[in-house]
Amino acid sequence: MRLATIRTPDGTSAARVSADGSTLVELPAADVGAVLARPDWPAWAAAQGGREHDAATADHAPLVPRPEKIICVGLNYRAHILEMGRELPDFPTLFAKYAPALIGAEDDIELPAVSEAVDWEAELAVVVGRPVERADPAAAAAAIGGYTVLNDVTARDWQYRTKQWLQGKTFARTTPLGPYLVTPDDPAVDPAGHTITSEVNGVEKQRSTTGDLLFDPVRLVSYISAILPLSPGDVIATGTPGGVGHARSPREYLADGDTLVTRIEGIGECRNPCRAAK
Amino acid sequence: MRLATIRTPDGTSAARVSADGSTLVELPAADVGAVLARPDWPAWAAAQGGREHDAATADHAPLVPRPEKIICVGLNYRAHILEMGRELPDFPTLFAKYAPALIGAEDDIELPAVSEAVDWEAELAVVVGRPVERADPAAAAAAIGGYTVLNDVTARDWQYRTKQWLQGKTFARTTPLGPYLVTPDDPAVDPAGHTITSEVNGVEKQRSTTGDLLFDPVRLVSYISAILPLSPGDVIATGTPGGVGHARSPREYLADGDTLVTRIEGIGECRNPCRAAK
Repeated sequence: MRLATIRTPDGTSAARVSADGSTLVELPAADVGAVLARPDWPAWAAAQGGREHDAATADHAPLVPRPEKIICVGLNYRAHILEMGRELPDFPTLFAKYAPALIGAEDDIELPAVSEAVDWEAELAVVVGRPVERADPAAAAAAIGGYTVLNDVTARDWQYRTKQWLQGKTFARTTPLGPYLVTPDDPAVDPAGHTITSEVNGVEKQRSTTGDLLFDPVRLVSYISAILPLSPGDVIATGTPGGVGHARSPREYLADGDTLVTRIEGIGECRNPCRAAK
Repeated sequence: MRLATIRTPDGTSAARVSADGSTLVELPAADVGAVLARPDWPAWAAAQGGREHDAATADHAPLVPRPEKIICVGLNYRAHILEMGRELPDFPTLFAKYAPALIGAEDDIELPAVSEAVDWEAELAVVVGRPVERADPAAAAAAIGGYTVLNDVTARDWQYRTKQWLQGKTFARTTPLGPYLVTPDDPAVDPAGHTITSEVNGVEKQRSTTGDLLFDPVRLVSYISAILPLSPGDVIATGTPGGVGHARSPREYLADGDTLVTRIEGIGECRNPCRAAK
């Protein structure tokens, strides 16, 4: 099953994607976060019906507009860690992002006027589907509501102003999340991994497979839930592979008018124009 | 004016502290976060009346139970930075904490079973009182809803597992916030600063003045609001002075049965027993 959060003339609405992918069927919930808050959401979302929209022209809001937590992971693609000459870490590196950073799958990325170094980071995002704390692997797997696409767009100059990355990671209206929540039982989900890429103006910048994740979604849910309870709608951004602009020679950053495409095969694609903030 | 969030038989309720400090008068709002969401909250909270409670025996919930953001500041007491042999930084160090970490002013601090090194960090917290983005100093000052006490209780072993501190900073049910929101016009608020202390089992561990903050509340609100919009109820924990347990020789940490008192003169006091998680 695939779910979305779309903008309609009456506000946002959750929607279910039809089996052939062509149609979005409105659900009686304001967004996917509200769907996931229902304990019975998988059966409920499969059974509801409502107004229908053409999937090709839908206007996607952030998949979960106001997650309680957005937890990001650094240094998590095995090949990229090794090519950087580092040892594989024992623990995931975790940092945060706040909800006002989120935008929809086709929304403009707002390039902050105060940054000269806005960079891309294509990531697989895990969305929590049920409350969980101190989860063993089975409970962690059961708590995964689904997968989606996120780009952890980062102001490198602010990220490195201090040793803590937060301030470069959470600029308003920078971080696409969506377009679909793909549930673990969806036929497109491949436990062996999905090809993940990013492109700027049609030129591929990152390519890897989510099968290369050092800490996979189940391990991340289990690890984080040892720290604090996870709630439905929480987002875990699982980290980015090599190929970011800041690591290129010469360095590359996003500019006004660029288009950033973030794609995970079988999961979805975000296509975001970049616009300088006014 | 002083506001609180208290637990009642019917759930939590916001309350106003009477002029003599002896009584809490219930307000028709579930918590201080709900009060601050009202654009007219200062006049509204001053005018409402309801059931009364003895302030001395009230059961405080986290002052704002579910802030959209808890933004913490590191390395912000001038004397402590200098005594550590460091230069004063150009930018505040920012990191995050999530709402499930919060507890009330007299609640138990849950010592995580997975940590051997839980430490104290007494802090002045700023609570945002109105929406603000890209605030100049005047707008930043106007956006401050009030001040309160927070202890940024930290699992040092998890904080230093990786270079990003988040995972040691956000263990569930560790971080007292309260008991009162003290508005900027309250007669107790002293722009020159307030004495801030922490005590473990009656022994003073930290003592400084909030007048020593390198980045003061107005600068912090202005700086952070250049990154993303701040919302009513957001909490900014402004950093801790010297005297934490991890910097002592030998190192000291909190143990089951300890009592941690965090006090800011004129603002309030949190008094939290420490209990090992089951």
